[in-house]
Amino acid sequence: MRDLAILSRGAMLVRHGRIQAVGSRAEIETLVSPQTRLVDAGGRVVLPGFVDAHTHPVFAGTRADEYELRAQGATYAEIAARGGGIRSTVRRTRAATEDELMDSARRYRQWFLRGGTTTVEAKSGYGLSLEAECKILRAIHRLGQEGSVRYVPTFLGAHEVPDEFRGRMDDYIALLIREMLPRVAREHLAEYCDVFCEPSVFPAAQARVILAAAKSLGFGLRLHADQFTPDEGALLAAELGADTADHLEATGPAGLEALRAAGVQPVLLPASVYNLGSPRYPAARQMIDAGLPVVLATDFNPGSSPTTSMPLVLSLASTQMKMTPAEAVTAATINAAHSLRQGHEIGSLEPGKFADFAIHDAADYRDLAYFFGRDTARAVYIGGVPAYQAE
Amino acid sequence: MRDLAILSRGAMLVRHGRIQAVGSRAEIETLVSPQTRLVDAGGRVVLPGFVDAHTHPVFAGTRADEYELRAQGATYAEIAARGGGIRSTVRRTRAATEDELMDSARRYRQWFLRGGTTTVEAKSGYGLSLEAECKILRAIHRLGQEGSVRYVPTFLGAHEVPDEFRGRMDDYIALLIREMLPRVAREHLAEYCDVFCEPSVFPAAQARVILAAAKSLGFGLRLHADQFTPDEGALLAAELGADTADHLEATGPAGLEALRAAGVQPVLLPASVYNLGSPRYPAARQMIDAGLPVVLATDFNPGSSPTTSMPLVLSLASTQMKMTPAEAVTAATINAAHSLRQGHEIGSLEPGKFADFAIHDAADYRDLAYFFGRDTARAVYIGGVPAYQAE
Repeated sequence: MRDLAILSRGAMLVRHGRIQAVGSRAEIETLVSPQTRLVDAGGRVVLPGFVDAHTHPVFAGTRADEYELRAQGATYAEIAARGGGIRSTVRRTRAATEDELMDSARRYRQWFLRGGTTTVEAKSGYGLSLEAECKILRAIHRLGQEGSVRYVPTFLGAHEVPDEFRGRMDDYIALLIREMLPRVAREHLAEYCDVFCEPSVFPAAQARVILAAAKSLGFGLRLHADQFTPDEGALLAAELGADTADHLEATGPAGLEALRAAGVQPVLLPASVYNLGSPRYPAARQMIDAGLPVVLATDFNPGSSPTTSMPLVLSLASTQMKMTPAEAVTAATINAAHSLRQGHEIGSLEPGKFADFAIHDAADYRDLAYFFGRDTARAVYIGGVPAYQAE
Repeated sequence: MRDLAILSRGAMLVRHGRIQAVGSRAEIETLVSPQTRLVDAGGRVVLPGFVDAHTHPVFAGTRADEYELRAQGATYAEIAARGGGIRSTVRRTRAATEDELMDSARRYRQWFLRGGTTTVEAKSGYGLSLEAECKILRAIHRLGQEGSVRYVPTFLGAHEVPDEFRGRMDDYIALLIREMLPRVAREHLAEYCDVFCEPSVFPAAQARVILAAAKSLGFGLRLHADQFTPDEGALLAAELGADTADHLEATGPAGLEALRAAGVQPVLLPASVYNLGSPRYPAARQMIDAGLPVVLATDFNPGSSPTTSMPLVLSLASTQMKMTPAEAVTAATINAAHSLRQGHEIGSLEPGKFADFAIHDAADYRDLAYFFGRDTARAVYIGGVPAYQAE
């Protein structure tokens, strides 16, 4: 993860949306034709577009009011117990039209671009009914079709038990398995299925039933695992052969060993740890030292992590989790691409892959984490097409 | 600090660089003439420009290499002991020309604008010789004269003991008092004098001598106080009637009470705490509850805090120090302006003050901290003149 294969004074030839050649400027100049359009990065760092492998980018409203309550000392759990948290966003998202959801999601898409992100794993989970979940997944598809960022859709119907099923979790799980999952599969609305596995949300026994049903329908599996409570989630992810186990703030040695043995990728979300004011970051150093192919993502969502910034996640990785800047870049690009089964298409600048890249306001790749708290991208290209240009 | 006097659907009339009237849109529309140029904020939040009351924005090179070492486990103190830290930036800054320093400082000035900052307190302190300190202070003056951000210069010759005076601190203090301070005063190169007061840098006894000399020459006083060690710095700031005591991560009840009794403003720098990976934030809540007019600043510098982002500082204030979003805005605007003796000119949008303001990509002022890790300003005006416009 520390070997970035950096090319100084490099160049890249792009054709039909894909990278045709990468090399020294002199090498690439021998390949250009009079029709080739030249883009001068001006000595700046060019990186593969960030692959943000865990986000919740389609929702209505904000939760700035709860943010203010937390600044006054309320905890995330207290706010959720009062009907706030995920359930308050569900109420507003159900009431919104698909077009209204598109409008806010397009604004956030622009923010993703400013941070140099070109692919976003996008979860549903603020609908929690057949129609509202499908509305969100359709919005995710439309966002992707508009072309300026790639979206990978994940069905997260098991994000929370909705208000009308309070105390009847099994009935909601029956709805998930009998109606929602088959419909999402039939209409090809999602590639992955995710469950918020946590004793206070969906305990492992219940999560297992949902994920097993999803797996039998052909979904890849991702889990919200061990955010607050150790090991149940990581062990379940390993047992089911999930592609990823995400969060892992509470995971202990047994959980880590299970992930390693089963080949499950850890997706770490330090921005939500930071934003909740928690001191407990996941054990990134131990995971990397154990050979786990760690992924970094924003967890963009209106509650625990309202940030779209992969550069800030790189900063959090280095300052709070002691990952080197190189490890953080690997985790945010090629490792993340593999976690979405797209390592052959995106995540690095290699011949044959999509020409998804960003020109950053930086002379050294380490400056993205080092000069923290800013939008670093000056220009972003997706499939060789300009998607963003700064002032 | 929680009362922001928010105007919904408000408007503002600007003339000759100053605010002439603030009120409802209907009220202001009765005052416009056919020659008035209209700027539509489009329903976005308009805030006074941030006043960043503690920065070190003129230096050569970066310290991304030390950043990488810290990510691998080295401490700030270990790096300094090996000749890194402030002294490595001093070596490079001495070798740079004034124009080279201007070039990098202009880049950072653009970053300040993207975060909505319009006034920057700017310290010297990477020269540590008569000529190199004057070179930095002249650069700060030129930056201010260019007009797109206001700079308030502070002389920080006592930032560190330079290499050639190692083991001879008293000789360096003699140079500071006999040559550097009188020259800076005579040429009007700085309004304030600051000293890094810390047992391992300039202990209180030595800091007192320097600051007393500065005070007798008419400088206002600011102190780096109690960053690592309790109360010496805060007590000295109180004793000397300094305008501010900055950092205060280690200050205890005795130090806080001394600041309160003496009317010294605390300047809190949570971005450096974050970036050094320390869990010890200053006791903002206790200070505010004790009635202290707290200020927030970035501490922008190439070592401990390479960020220019006041929006990120607002986020740190709310998530790590439990300040409300309103308290954080007050600390970053009007309280900061008063700490620079400019509360009558800047820091709020009131008739008679300079028209220094930013239009932010936000529908609610709380969104600046809530949607964290991005450049929030869409347009910035200084003295009524456009200084920045986003894509």
